[in-house]
Amino acid sequence: MSNNPSFVLKAIDDVVYEERPIPEISGSQVLVKVKKTGICGSDVHYLVHGRIGDFVVNNPMVLGHESAGIVEKVGPDVKHLKAGDRVAMEPGATCRNCDACKSGRYNLCPDIVFAATPPYDGTLGRFYRVPADLAYPLPEGVSLEDGAMMEPLAVGVHSVSNLGGFRSNQSIAVFGCGPVGLLCMAVAKALGAARIIAVDIVPSRLEFAKEYAATDTYIPVSSEEGESKIDYSKRNADTMRQQLKIEDRGTNAIDLVIDASGAEVSIQTAFHVVKSGGTFVQVGMGNPNVTINLGMLTVKELNYKGSFRYGPGDYPLAIALVAQGKINLKPLVTHRFPFDQAIAAFKATRAGKSEDGKGVIKAIISGPDVSIEEN
Amino acid sequence: MSNNPSFVLKAIDDVVYEERPIPEISGSQVLVKVKKTGICGSDVHYLVHGRIGDFVVNNPMVLGHESAGIVEKVGPDVKHLKAGDRVAMEPGATCRNCDACKSGRYNLCPDIVFAATPPYDGTLGRFYRVPADLAYPLPEGVSLEDGAMMEPLAVGVHSVSNLGGFRSNQSIAVFGCGPVGLLCMAVAKALGAARIIAVDIVPSRLEFAKEYAATDTYIPVSSEEGESKIDYSKRNADTMRQQLKIEDRGTNAIDLVIDASGAEVSIQTAFHVVKSGGTFVQVGMGNPNVTINLGMLTVKELNYKGSFRYGPGDYPLAIALVAQGKINLKPLVTHRFPFDQAIAAFKATRAGKSEDGKGVIKAIISGPDVSIEEN
Amino acid sequence: MSNNPSFVLKAIDDVVYEERPIPEISGSQVLVKVKKTGICGSDVHYLVHGRIGDFVVNNPMVLGHESAGIVEKVGPDVKHLKAGDRVAMEPGATCRNCDACKSGRYNLCPDIVFAATPPYDGTLGRFYRVPADLAYPLPEGVSLEDGAMMEPLAVGVHSVSNLGGFRSNQSIAVFGCGPVGLLCMAVAKALGAARIIAVDIVPSRLEFAKEYAATDTYIPVSSEEGESKIDYSKRNADTMRQQLKIEDRGTNAIDLVIDASGAEVSIQTAFHVVKSGGTFVQVGMGNPNVTINLGMLTVKELNYKGSFRYGPGDYPLAIALVAQGKINLKPLVTHRFPFDQAIAAFKATRAGKSEDGKGVIKAIISGPDVSIEEN
Amino acid sequence: MSNNPSFVLKAIDDVVYEERPIPEISGSQVLVKVKKTGICGSDVHYLVHGRIGDFVVNNPMVLGHESAGIVEKVGPDVKHLKAGDRVAMEPGATCRNCDACKSGRYNLCPDIVFAATPPYDGTLGRFYRVPADLAYPLPEGVSLEDGAMMEPLAVGVHSVSNLGGFRSNQSIAVFGCGPVGLLCMAVAKALGAARIIAVDIVPSRLEFAKEYAATDTYIPVSSEEGESKIDYSKRNADTMRQQLKIEDRGTNAIDLVIDASGAEVSIQTAFHVVKSGGTFVQVGMGNPNVTINLGMLTVKELNYKGSFRYGPGDYPLAIALVAQGKINLKPLVTHRFPFDQAIAAFKATRAGKSEDGKGVIKAIISGPDVSIEEN
Repeated sequence: MSNNPSFVLKAIDDVVYEERPIPEISGSQVLVKVKKTGICGSDVHYLVHGRIGDFVVNNPMVLGHESAGIVEKVGPDVKHLKAGDRVAMEPGATCRNCDACKSGRYNLCPDIVFAATPPYDGTLGRFYRVPADLAYPLPEGVSLEDGAMMEPLAVGVHSVSNLGGFRSNQSIAVFGCGPVGLLCMAVAKALGAARIIAVDIVPSRLEFAKEYAATDTYIPVSSEEGESKIDYSKRNADTMRQQLKIEDRGTNAIDLVIDASGAEVSIQTAFHVVKSGGTFVQVGMGNPNVTINLGMLTVKELNYKGSFRYGPGDYPLAIALVAQGKINLKPLVTHRFPFDQAIAAFKATRAGKSEDGKGVIKAIISGPDVSIEEN
Repeated sequence: MSNNPSFVLKAIDDVVYEERPIPEISGSQVLVKVKKTGICGSDVHYLVHGRIGDFVVNNPMVLGHESAGIVEKVGPDVKHLKAGDRVAMEPGATCRNCDACKSGRYNLCPDIVFAATPPYDGTLGRFYRVPADLAYPLPEGVSLEDGAMMEPLAVGVHSVSNLGGFRSNQSIAVFGCGPVGLLCMAVAKALGAARIIAVDIVPSRLEFAKEYAATDTYIPVSSEEGESKIDYSKRNADTMRQQLKIEDRGTNAIDLVIDASGAEVSIQTAFHVVKSGGTFVQVGMGNPNVTINLGMLTVKELNYKGSFRYGPGDYPLAIALVAQGKINLKPLVTHRFPFDQAIAAFKATRAGKSEDGKGVIKAIISGPDVSIEEN
Repeated sequence: MSNNPSFVLKAIDDVVYEERPIPEISGSQVLVKVKKTGICGSDVHYLVHGRIGDFVVNNPMVLGHESAGIVEKVGPDVKHLKAGDRVAMEPGATCRNCDACKSGRYNLCPDIVFAATPPYDGTLGRFYRVPADLAYPLPEGVSLEDGAMMEPLAVGVHSVSNLGGFRSNQSIAVFGCGPVGLLCMAVAKALGAARIIAVDIVPSRLEFAKEYAATDTYIPVSSEEGESKIDYSKRNADTMRQQLKIEDRGTNAIDLVIDASGAEVSIQTAFHVVKSGGTFVQVGMGNPNVTINLGMLTVKELNYKGSFRYGPGDYPLAIALVAQGKINLKPLVTHRFPFDQAIAAFKATRAGKSEDGKGVIKAIISGPDVSIEEN
Repeated sequence: MSNNPSFVLKAIDDVVYEERPIPEISGSQVLVKVKKTGICGSDVHYLVHGRIGDFVVNNPMVLGHESAGIVEKVGPDVKHLKAGDRVAMEPGATCRNCDACKSGRYNLCPDIVFAATPPYDGTLGRFYRVPADLAYPLPEGVSLEDGAMMEPLAVGVHSVSNLGGFRSNQSIAVFGCGPVGLLCMAVAKALGAARIIAVDIVPSRLEFAKEYAATDTYIPVSSEEGESKIDYSKRNADTMRQQLKIEDRGTNAIDLVIDASGAEVSIQTAFHVVKSGGTFVQVGMGNPNVTINLGMLTVKELNYKGSFRYGPGDYPLAIALVAQGKINLKPLVTHRFPFDQAIAAFKATRAGKSEDGKGVIKAIISGPDVSIEEN
């Protein structure tokens, strides 16, 4: 049966609406009517470049992976959901049989079917099929837009709480104030941070961060003519330490740094400001290759961890923190588009990224049957 | 009282023998008559460059920090040692009061007094004073030369067992077959490694590694004209994976990589060959700045950890593994010098490093009162 | 010099005021003028029984170990404190040299000198001497009475955060609503608990707990004639699960149970209600021997951990949570006595314990030079 | 199709051979021709008592769960196995969707289908069906009998390595020298134990343990008339400490105790002898309720953990340790029976348990098509 209008990337900068078959469900699967979908940098990246690293769009692919909707139909083995339930969807169905799946790190499953990661279709259509355990009921007071935002929030939870091991009264510095950076700050705040330092090169983003979750902000000094990145980063870090009275140990030390920028200078600066014995979680993926300070890594015995998507417990914690009012996702949604203007949402997101902070934080596209106002 | 002839670095390439006062001991301190001292790359580095990173030799400093000896005298509060005991000395006396000391990471103590790290004198004299808990009795069958070797072995224990969390039946790859790399392999073997891959550019070092502890060896392919380091490293890693049938997951995956070379290409290659979700411990400090592959760090969720010296339990495990016959340190001692030829030991070590593997693995200098044969 | 009036336990139920010498300080020690001291169940226990387990009062001993005061004098090596500073005192000076001290578990140091644990004198005098790192400056807004309460609060932090590994959005059940139980709840609340269940047999204590920190309360059902404790506990647990809709897994499961009662039935009930794979921290020490359900321990793979005093980071977190306003200690202080009525404070505490919840939660004794009102 | 003769428990002490249908396989399932099956205490317990705790045999149930065999047929999605492969079977198929399954603790899955645990049939037939990832290929040199023994060995791996966190050079005491106790010792030995203390009341078992894996043995002192278990256990522990020079800390301390007996006195004694800060893993389930020393749990901050079956990585490590020659399972197989004498195997096992150590360690039943000699 074909009644599933979908937003499909055919080639670089070439998107169309296509009718796709409605997925069949069986066993413990669930069919969800997609209501709200956030646009992520990676969606835009596929649109513009046709690839992210080794993931190449060779065939037409439905875009979108940050979605919430309403359960349309459930498979015969599904017990905890029924038609009509409002759910956030975790967009990666794993094999459940490999070592990664069985040992609590399913985000590393080599056979994961992840929405809008080639060759797998995404969620920007009328219907999407997920395993029932990946459809999380939204508590009362949590909107469908909030539900769509659970995906990037789960990235923040994974980075800050799970990998970063962040605990009450610790201090964090987050480099990069895009959506993921802001959500990392929101998680740190919800977990009881003593201090949250936001770093970005765009003043308006820092203002937003301060209003949203940060306790302190830092805008990098300018680099000097002929100065190497390494030297510049060191000078930048020294300034940051001085301005914000950051020390290498004790109460004024930074327990955890998160780089959500992917920028080389951010990463280099972060190595300097994190405390001795501290943790550095890398979630931003801007630059494929960056130069780091090996002496800092060893002498401070840092723990530099890559963060990829989310794993066990991340979605539930994300949803709970929002339901408990500890995280407010609403200020992050800046643009809303109906389904038939999906391309405008991509344009806005793309522009927002390039215009340095005047632009979009997060654009949400409504499903085919949904008005923008509906929430 | 001055009867403590010592080998002192006065300035770059300027070493002399000087009489130093015999240290007074009190409380729970121990005075040790130094019998055997290994020469470390860092000793040579101070001799040649007068500094390592931020540690600068501004005043004359006794060299040496890998030492074992015989207890000469104990302070009034010392219970577990007496004059005549043979001991290995852990050469870093910490403050015991700071957060690092109290939370089980004393190697990060900012006030550590570490032998032959400016401004603190080292062990290359007749006598050295240590806190009693840092003088470890040598079990029968463990020689004083073995005792001197406990220092680099503790580095291996710290990297492989403590930070690397290496366990029975795991696989490891070690980049760099100098003393620390070899000792990391020895530790992995003693802990029940399924596979130990040694990597070096010098064939004779690989032969030695194979005989000593490695199950497999790999010698990097040659780089091509105009090829970037990043591209070369990727090609090198692909070749290594193919030659040694290394996979990204499962039984043929590498659980832990150790870089004991500090070489950029080693580090880049290591990122490629370690398994998804694996751990990478950096113990070598050759290059101050290296370029790494950020995509690999994040998508594989690697854990890249700096290793610095050793902490709680590392010396005891090192000594136990030797006493139990699981690690044999004797093959690593290649050169022996009497105290009055200390400078020759430094020359040999220096030459060994530059002559690419024809040279010295470890030179041991006997104390002023000790013959080379005594053990 | 003797100008240090102290409250001394000479034998069972025999306490006197004595002049004791003012302690000399040296090195990194600090002399503190004691201002406020909380009375703990263990102080009363020594008064009434002359012993706790293997700790026997054979010689006169100054009582008290929950104290805050003002720095009178600092040793020559003390940098972070000066005369006049308001401080909470951690009352256990450790050897700093043993394996426990060096591996981050200093509360297990066999040579710890703990205030008012025989044979060591406590804090109920004019002056007490502590190592400088165990004197924690009180931030503005944190009173000296709060400072005295940091000791039992650190027990709560150790049990809930450190050993219990409690994290945001988890659920906890605390058995026993005495001071330590209440402080465990306060810590859980400060760390973002989803649900805090207080259990006690005294309704007024549960009311207090509910007002103070608990989200739910449970009062055990009555036992039936001839029913074994084991059967009764099972029935009690079933009722508790039903009344509070507790499940063995998922959102309605209890991640952590704390027993702060030491009562056998509490412990047995706790095994039933904690989730599969959950953690049970035992902090109460009422009964020397209790019968537990082995099947529950194994089939649910519980982690049953003993909690003893506090370790690295516990005092700092306790102080921070109070300073940040996340924990309010004031409601717990119910009685206040001047120094010369110390015995009345012990009587009140003793009566409070026996009178089942009508009585005292915490009595604070002011130092010799301090009025009750001073804070 | 029915050609699957099976050994079925109908009621207490009532077993018959029945023809059962050959299981259909699909997807990633595998049909295994069962070759060798070990008899476990739990099999005997069901035969004699018809239940274990809450697991009650209400309907006829095929017995057996320690099995190895040869792959007969594989489902269409199976890649790593083919007909003819020799495999050990992990006998618990989990749901793979619940929190326990996804967070790396699948042995706690509430919906696990475990062989010969009511209401699920076991492996004592011609054929058994398993998910492909639970059929582990046996390396060359590992026999099918070894394969059957992997099940109890995985219990030992789970207890010692996974839950016990046992590492090289640590010391262990194992209470109870039945198959599981012996296999725990074998694992400890394979992992590089410094010392392995076997405890049992039967001298012949201790002799066997000493020959097999233990470095020391201890036979409890006799209890005295009128002595309470608690007092007796304390005296027993004191004797054990003295005889074996066990201390509470340091090199002569016991890092890990395993109780594989389920006997109250063993458990009580174990609390006394394990080191301060040590771990106690409970794997034996003899007694439903036991009395423990609460003071010891708290003052020593013990970690008392229940162990249930096995989880991620346990089977692979068990197989590897046998394949590497670090564990020899052959001495443990004492009796062998053809399929049609299965009942004799149960009788022998039952007798062996009651006759106190003169009897069986492990009886292996061959599959219907297999001679006893075949291996």
